[in-house]
Amino acid sequence: MTAEFDLIALIRARAAALADERGDVVLGIGDDAALLAPPPGRQLVAATDTLNSGVHFAADARAADIGWKALAANLSDLAAMGAEPAWCTLSLSLPAGEAAARATFVEGFADGFLELAARHRVALVGGDTTRGPLSVCVTVLGFVEPGWALRRDAARVDDDIWVTGTLGDAGAALALDGIDGYREFAVRRIDGVDADPAVASARLHERLRRPQPRVAAGRALRGLARAGIDVSDGLLADLGHLCVASGVGATIDAAALPASRALAAACADDARRALQLGGGDDYELCFTASPNQRDPIARSLAASGTPAKVIGRIQAEPGVRVRLADGAAWTPPRRGYQHFA
Amino acid sequence: MTAEFDLIALIRARAAALADERGDVVLGIGDDAALLAPPPGRQLVAATDTLNSGVHFAADARAADIGWKALAANLSDLAAMGAEPAWCTLSLSLPAGEAAARATFVEGFADGFLELAARHRVALVGGDTTRGPLSVCVTVLGFVEPGWALRRDAARVDDDIWVTGTLGDAGAALALDGIDGYREFAVRRIDGVDADPAVASARLHERLRRPQPRVAAGRALRGLARAGIDVSDGLLADLGHLCVASGVGATIDAAALPASRALAAACADDARRALQLGGGDDYELCFTASPNQRDPIARSLAASGTPAKVIGRIQAEPGVRVRLADGAAWTPPRRGYQHFA
Repeated sequence: MTAEFDLIALIRARAAALADERGDVVLGIGDDAALLAPPPGRQLVAATDTLNSGVHFAADARAADIGWKALAANLSDLAAMGAEPAWCTLSLSLPAGEAAARATFVEGFADGFLELAARHRVALVGGDTTRGPLSVCVTVLGFVEPGWALRRDAARVDDDIWVTGTLGDAGAALALDGIDGYREFAVRRIDGVDADPAVASARLHERLRRPQPRVAAGRALRGLARAGIDVSDGLLADLGHLCVASGVGATIDAAALPASRALAAACADDARRALQLGGGDDYELCFTASPNQRDPIARSLAASGTPAKVIGRIQAEPGVRVRLADGAAWTPPRRGYQHFA
Repeated sequence: MTAEFDLIALIRARAAALADERGDVVLGIGDDAALLAPPPGRQLVAATDTLNSGVHFAADARAADIGWKALAANLSDLAAMGAEPAWCTLSLSLPAGEAAARATFVEGFADGFLELAARHRVALVGGDTTRGPLSVCVTVLGFVEPGWALRRDAARVDDDIWVTGTLGDAGAALALDGIDGYREFAVRRIDGVDADPAVASARLHERLRRPQPRVAAGRALRGLARAGIDVSDGLLADLGHLCVASGVGATIDAAALPASRALAAACADDARRALQLGGGDDYELCFTASPNQRDPIARSLAASGTPAKVIGRIQAEPGVRVRLADGAAWTPPRRGYQHFA
């Protein structure tokens, strides 16, 4: 047995129960490929995302947090399609070194990864472990009813623009940590009247460490929303992609942007807006819908336990604009995550 | 537009024709996830493999060869299940640096990746590009008829052990290149009577650079073979995994191991056998079948254009043994690729 097979055996033992429970995993981890039984009459939805050490997570991040986030980023992509996740594969590159340290890392990684997988009943069905710089590549597979996917290219002029939850918390945590591209937005200590500084900081960091993919919200929007995308690179960047794909533009009402109490306590207005519009790693959903659907959407999202707000409107003029409460245009200092900036 | 989106646009433009042609790609590259239409009545087959620079390919390997090999390794996993490949995703991590150099690399990578994809009508439907040490993670999806997959755990005592093509060529190329773990097997210059040295070396390196996944052979074996695995880590290692999964053992007849003329020219007998048994990167199929199926298998593989040989027998005693022509046991110096040795 090589060490790779020990690591795979470790992951396999912990992933087996969920694969058995689903009933649609014919053959899981341990062969050349997984055998799966898709439900009839549904489209298959597939997303892949890689997280690299020092780029998508700090080199000293906890193994369990890396595992959680690697799956969360992928589940968020499926949520943005309105899809129900079912299965995933995991490819884990680990540096050479002491076998015991590798096993400890994999145990911790599996803690976070499989905790989130269990919450969404996603079975880990295959993958590999290889030697290399620390990197995680996850592919998630799921289903959606034909015609019900929330595509990026389906927005229409005069659609409402909605966003779930609150924006900017993960970016504020990066700012508090002094990360490049963020540190200029942490303009004051956390000392708001209604926020305990330590609690507020912990909440912001929790959003960064353990993002909650909006799977239930994505499912609740089927048949109600038109276009959707997840906010992983920052609202302006991601809404920008949606607008380009749909051949439209947008104006965002800055005063309507949802902020957590922790974020409001941590930042002055300009920094808060900059993080809400340009901070990455939020993993909320941004979607568009006809204004006629406002009540049904509010009810359906409330039933799924998801807060959401209308924050702007789709327009014919290309580009994404931001208006302040007095109607003045506002130019944000940061437009979103630049992968190769 | 960030540079990531330029790279994705580049790949998307080149991948679009094949996705359109298949007719089962509802939505390909460019959204949060791909939308796919699986055929009714088939099982879905999924495999993921990562190739890291300096581990799975040389740091100075050609971009087109990296692209080819990343897809080939995954198609080989599907071939080993008897599956028909259909779709794939690609996650490409690229070092920071000059954007023009990155675009040149991606163009070359796409040349090799999409050339092989076109041969097997596999549509590239999604993925991402991220910043990080050079690494490629590919997930391949395909189909197999329920009950027809070649699993690792299906071998039975007295089954024939077969192997497609020839073994050891890729290992010999690594030996000629002086790679750690291989260089001790390059025991003589290529100067065989019937082989031009430059031609033989080129053929061995071609096997390493451009492995041919045995997709047609895997399909030809459905309903005929019992258990199957692809030979990526070396025959002894991979047959060993198959035996463990099936709860059996095996004896290999060293004299029956298939060798290319180039390999025979490059190596003395012991080195040749060591490479045939322990060299990685061959991507041939090793499978087991009832001796009653010998003729039907030979006919079906011949019809698929695949050479194949019986090289041994499944036995009850655990472990994989090697016998020489005189019946003596032979202990190979190398048992296969150790991922964390």
